[in-house]
Amino acid sequence: MDTDKKTVLVFSDDLDKALAAFILANGAAAMGNDVTMFFAFWGVNLLRRPRGRRAAGSRAVAGVSSGNGGTAVPAMVGKLAARGPGHLRLSKWNFGGLGPVVIRRLMRRAKVMDLAELIATAREQEIRLVACTMSLDLFGLAESDLVDGVEFAGVATYFDYADEANVNLLI
Amino acid sequence: MDTDKKTVLVFSDDLDKALAAFILANGAAAMGNDVTMFFAFWGVNLLRRPRGRRAAGSRAVAGVSSGNGGTAVPAMVGKLAARGPGHLRLSKWNFGGLGPVVIRRLMRRAKVMDLAELIATAREQEIRLVACTMSLDLFGLAESDLVDGVEFAGVATYFDYADEANVNLLI
Amino acid sequence: MDTDKKTVLVFSDDLDKALAAFILANGAAAMGNDVTMFFAFWGVNLLRRPRGRRAAGSRAVAGVSSGNGGTAVPAMVGKLAARGPGHLRLSKWNFGGLGPVVIRRLMRRAKVMDLAELIATAREQEIRLVACTMSLDLFGLAESDLVDGVEFAGVATYFDYADEANVNLLI
Repeated sequence: MDTDKKTVLVFSDDLDKALAAFILANGAAAMGNDVTMFFAFWGVNLLRRPRGRRAAGSRAVAGVSSGNGGTAVPAMVGKLAARGPGHLRLSKWNFGGLGPVVIRRLMRRAKVMDLAELIATAREQEIRLVACTMSLDLFGLAESDLVDGVEFAGVATYFDYADEANVNLLI
Repeated sequence: MDTDKKTVLVFSDDLDKALAAFILANGAAAMGNDVTMFFAFWGVNLLRRPRGRRAAGSRAVAGVSSGNGGTAVPAMVGKLAARGPGHLRLSKWNFGGLGPVVIRRLMRRAKVMDLAELIATAREQEIRLVACTMSLDLFGLAESDLVDGVEFAGVATYFDYADEANVNLLI
Repeated sequence: MDTDKKTVLVFSDDLDKALAAFILANGAAAMGNDVTMFFAFWGVNLLRRPRGRRAAGSRAVAGVSSGNGGTAVPAMVGKLAARGPGHLRLSKWNFGGLGPVVIRRLMRRAKVMDLAELIATAREQEIRLVACTMSLDLFGLAESDLVDGVEFAGVATYFDYADEANVNLLI
């Protein structure tokens, strides 16, 4: 075991929890830790490429484009799911989208970085961003739907990192 | 400390969090870990026996059957509380029960095991399932209201297991 | 690393999660552990002084009193935010405040300590209560808005404690 490794398992895509996850990860990295963030279930939404910016050469998303008569469900999910850091809800006080506006305003006032800045900082600090492949399958997302520089792995890889870390958080 | 032990403290009974808890626990067990899942607060609902299948010889639930004029509250809770893996809500997008239907459909499409299968796999892999006795008392549940093979213990036992594990998750 | 240290990072101010956090922390302390609770984001609300009991010599809260034309937002937040352990919501089944009443009634019936008692016990057991300064800034709270005996620190201090602990929980 190595005391300079940390993992954050990001299950949620609520704006408030996403902020906390990145503030913790960036703080740990700034202290010299080797940090891995593992995004599972709703958490993969945090890494979604903004609409209309699909990577060149991306393969079609099976569930959405297959025309096999069962496309309505993933399409609905795709519509409802958050698309990247600019479209998240709060875990409470969402008020139809007003809550996140308030939180962002409070963050600017308190000079706290917003989520897009926190993600950029995480990349600059070389925090490893790993997306759960089972979660992508579940939501009918392709690897190309996520931003560049993300790794893809399953639960075994999560535990490989967690086994080497001395602090493992789940949010 | 032993690197082949893990604990998952399951506080929630939301379907999505329950799935994540069992996917993590089963994944760790498949890698050779000795895994303990500790169910507290809402989490005990995941282990409830389906309605009408009370264990033989079960003792009556004090709060519900005592007829002491204060039975309305636990009775309401019993009615509202989830009864096992087939009746859970989502932590978001519940849409009056439509959301869980959608998630289950997505899971079948992505060939992800559903919760009942995940629980069965956990038992096959000899994952220790421990229910928090204080939580049972809180909701007026008897040990016989839970499925067979569950152990019963308090917070001290949780820390006994956590002290020996190298990854301790709470969801 | 020392096996007799634990941390609980309290992100939420939902009544049910707050209860779980203090039951875990108090249980660990009763077993002889040195426990640190770190309150961040919504969690800082758990430590708020009841309305009208501001500490002597407290400095004004900048965002609320500055009259700079942007005061509406923190004022609204201050109004909405929970004020200490007597005014919390549940993470589910809140029912406009009825849910917490039910839970408190169930707790009395099951002889579980309520949150105020759990906090008092945490203090008696010398559990370290640390409030996240960035979260205070975010919500426009001053140190004097929190109860006495709380320490103030940032994410680096959280990891200093977590690095020395063998169980680190986030709720």
